[in-house]
Amino acid sequence: MAVTLLDVVARLGGQIQGDGGVTIERIAPLDVAGPGDIAFFANPRYRSQLIVTGASAVILAPAAATTCPVAAIVTPQPYLYFARLAQWLHPAALPAPGVMPGAWVPATIPDDVHVGPTAVVDAGARIGAGTVISAGCVIGDGVEIGAGSFLYPNVTLYPGCCIGQRAILHAGVVIGADGFGFARDVDGGWVKVPQTGGVIVGDDVEIGANTTVDRGALTDTVIGNGVKLDNQIQVAHNVRIGDHTAIAGCVGIAGSARIGRRCTIGGGAIVLGHIEIADDVHISAGTLVAKSIVTPGTYTGTVPFMPHEDWLRNFSRMRHLEAMADKIRALEKRIAGLEQKS
Amino acid sequence: MAVTLLDVVARLGGQIQGDGGVTIERIAPLDVAGPGDIAFFANPRYRSQLIVTGASAVILAPAAATTCPVAAIVTPQPYLYFARLAQWLHPAALPAPGVMPGAWVPATIPDDVHVGPTAVVDAGARIGAGTVISAGCVIGDGVEIGAGSFLYPNVTLYPGCCIGQRAILHAGVVIGADGFGFARDVDGGWVKVPQTGGVIVGDDVEIGANTTVDRGALTDTVIGNGVKLDNQIQVAHNVRIGDHTAIAGCVGIAGSARIGRRCTIGGGAIVLGHIEIADDVHISAGTLVAKSIVTPGTYTGTVPFMPHEDWLRNFSRMRHLEAMADKIRALEKRIAGLEQKS
Amino acid sequence: MAVTLLDVVARLGGQIQGDGGVTIERIAPLDVAGPGDIAFFANPRYRSQLIVTGASAVILAPAAATTCPVAAIVTPQPYLYFARLAQWLHPAALPAPGVMPGAWVPATIPDDVHVGPTAVVDAGARIGAGTVISAGCVIGDGVEIGAGSFLYPNVTLYPGCCIGQRAILHAGVVIGADGFGFARDVDGGWVKVPQTGGVIVGDDVEIGANTTVDRGALTDTVIGNGVKLDNQIQVAHNVRIGDHTAIAGCVGIAGSARIGRRCTIGGGAIVLGHIEIADDVHISAGTLVAKSIVTPGTYTGTVPFMPHEDWLRNFSRMRHLEAMADKIRALEKRIAGLEQKS
Repeated sequence: MAVTLLDVVARLGGQIQGDGGVTIERIAPLDVAGPGDIAFFANPRYRSQLIVTGASAVILAPAAATTCPVAAIVTPQPYLYFARLAQWLHPAALPAPGVMPGAWVPATIPDDVHVGPTAVVDAGARIGAGTVISAGCVIGDGVEIGAGSFLYPNVTLYPGCCIGQRAILHAGVVIGADGFGFARDVDGGWVKVPQTGGVIVGDDVEIGANTTVDRGALTDTVIGNGVKLDNQIQVAHNVRIGDHTAIAGCVGIAGSARIGRRCTIGGGAIVLGHIEIADDVHISAGTLVAKSIVTPGTYTGTVPFMPHEDWLRNFSRMRHLEAMADKIRALEKRIAGLEQKS
Repeated sequence: MAVTLLDVVARLGGQIQGDGGVTIERIAPLDVAGPGDIAFFANPRYRSQLIVTGASAVILAPAAATTCPVAAIVTPQPYLYFARLAQWLHPAALPAPGVMPGAWVPATIPDDVHVGPTAVVDAGARIGAGTVISAGCVIGDGVEIGAGSFLYPNVTLYPGCCIGQRAILHAGVVIGADGFGFARDVDGGWVKVPQTGGVIVGDDVEIGANTTVDRGALTDTVIGNGVKLDNQIQVAHNVRIGDHTAIAGCVGIAGSARIGRRCTIGGGAIVLGHIEIADDVHISAGTLVAKSIVTPGTYTGTVPFMPHEDWLRNFSRMRHLEAMADKIRALEKRIAGLEQKS
Repeated sequence: MAVTLLDVVARLGGQIQGDGGVTIERIAPLDVAGPGDIAFFANPRYRSQLIVTGASAVILAPAAATTCPVAAIVTPQPYLYFARLAQWLHPAALPAPGVMPGAWVPATIPDDVHVGPTAVVDAGARIGAGTVISAGCVIGDGVEIGAGSFLYPNVTLYPGCCIGQRAILHAGVVIGADGFGFARDVDGGWVKVPQTGGVIVGDDVEIGANTTVDRGALTDTVIGNGVKLDNQIQVAHNVRIGDHTAIAGCVGIAGSARIGRRCTIGGGAIVLGHIEIADDVHISAGTLVAKSIVTPGTYTGTVPFMPHEDWLRNFSRMRHLEAMADKIRALEKRIAGLEQKS
């Protein structure tokens, strides 16, 4: 697919600087781009790459326009513009509609749905138009999937889960497994609490590879519209995640936590159960959220790393912070005593 | 399924308060329950919900009985009682016995086993009566699975693993992959150490979605009876987990760690290799267990989070704890000097 | 398979101590080994096991040779030697070549490749000689897999990924899912940035169960030769991992991080995005790597755990480290004042 910059701005807006007839075919990073490539410039630390770029054109903000050695599309948000252009130039490849050999599809599905070989779509499932269910997926009884969704291989949807429109579920995703609910018996053993709730996933949600979202214990686990979950995330039963929140890889969210809208959570963070996090809160990577957060902002609770020997000396002190505070208090008293005398 | 409170106590014990003829059909939370629902009350913070509940009946402890506005079942452990009642009212749906089309089952299996479409059960596998092997599962040669087990879709059991009775393995579970064992070569590369041990999982074990349990290096990895593992957990080679221990999501347990009986481990905790943890130990979420624990109790090692700017100021000090201790020591000397003089 | 110690040293080198005609059949740990078993002794803490071992022979270093009560193979690196011997005595069981029933293989593949039942190998995939693709694997269009690789069940390779020779990919591995790339829209929502890069995995790489490696955003994610990844690891888009680096379970590596050669990363560590880590760096388990590391060595940033009540007292101080530093500074001034006066 080859388009001119004029074609691009006709579709996506923005101002052309230089020759609008320049033809581009694909996206590329500033530093490796060549003829036919369009790049973007959004981070000032890459200015040196911009100056010498081999790209045919660059997307950039007004402030950077004069620095650009080639044709440009000027727009206040270059990265956002780039994302939209990239979607246009690189549309997701859709497999042909139809049920492939080896699939097991007792469900009634629209003609334009693709079901890959060895995929299973149980009898009561309702699949939206144009959806792709790749090889190895197992879609349980009574599942609903909205139109235009794309399930990569080996996704498992337990019975009764509801997925909105235009969902992207990556390989190995599991939605609707039982929440971790047990009552302790008198002998120390555990009695399973049946997990009778479901999972409701909104529209325009993307869920990364091998991420798991458990069904609710009594009521539902709810993932809002536009939520983006990275890989290897665990979302426990009855969690609620607000619209447009984005969560990075390896995060664990314990049962009944409620996370607001437009939040971001960094990789490896842990959110404890029954915590509430307000809208527009940003949790730094590796942070343990052990109590609720009511005020928007960025929150962090991690430790600096250092050479191991330094760490050994320094961090042994962590076991003695209370003692250090006691010593300081004692010193304050002794000094006050001396000051009175002098 | 509709039962009266009299039916319930005839089966599960407990005392009826109010009308034993009240009929219940399902379980529900206190705050949304309506006619035909039975709820439980175990946590005093929900007392306000109890007082106005629309449930037909509530399960609660003697101390709370007088507060209950509707019929009640009084029992010393309401949540445990609720778990048992919920199991009765909401039995797991079992698919019909038989091998579904598209499954590949060279193994000889009992007539009452269900094998889902696209599941594979290798020649030498021995499957217990009444077991369910869902679509996409791959059961290796020589695997043993006890009676009454339920494998959700896309579970992989490597050859030779032994699973006890009444196991519940959620989607994406992998049991018996090679442990992470390599010898460093003289050139810095790694030489694989064949992992010739197996995995032995006891009875009544539940393992959450996408959790992995590696096979032993020379001897077996062992999961005790009644152990409950949440999602996204990694159990390395030769780990031993004692009976009735429960482990929350995203926990990592390194090689040859031994965890006692009736322990609980919070989400995201890491247990280092060769560590031993006594019975009845509770590890808080996010804690790194870097040495053995011989005394029962609760152990924690996490850092508080705070607004990012506060954290920047505060936690930079963590690199200087040793220096702070040195300063305190120096101050103590100087004060002692002054005190002698005065 | 039974071999004499003479057979072993003829193949693998080393010196025999005692009777070279001793026959061994399998490997075993020192403490449980019996007749026909060969064990290794590399860690002095197991000396008491060596002295009473029932093994027919032991592999050990020269310094330990005199302690050995049975026949021995003496070599400077007993564990490395043991790994090589174990590979010889316990070769990986290879299934017979051929495409099993229920597999879907439009691709053209060599005759000696095994494709398990229900596996899928898309039309454009190129599979190396002798490779094993187990049941439930889904190999996308245009994937390349080098000769002699072994894919365990339910592995997903997205279109276009390249895997080197002799790869071992454990069950549930996902390679090539979209990186987590979104541009924030003006309304707070997220616009997907198509991930047009690929994944290149070198030769002799082993990847553990349920580990995920994302495809690059514009250029490729690259895993070097001889890299070993444990289970449940997340490798984000455009990460580069140098040759012979080994990474333990549950590690998360954020986008565009570059990790050097011969590094080791302990379990549960998190490496932030765009970080660079030099060659021969060792990161301790549970450490958050929040800035680049240019000097080889071992780095740590974890907190000690303690009984929960001690932790409550101690770690509340962590919120007040800045205040403690302020108090110390104030004390220093006051003491200086007193010292001047006295």
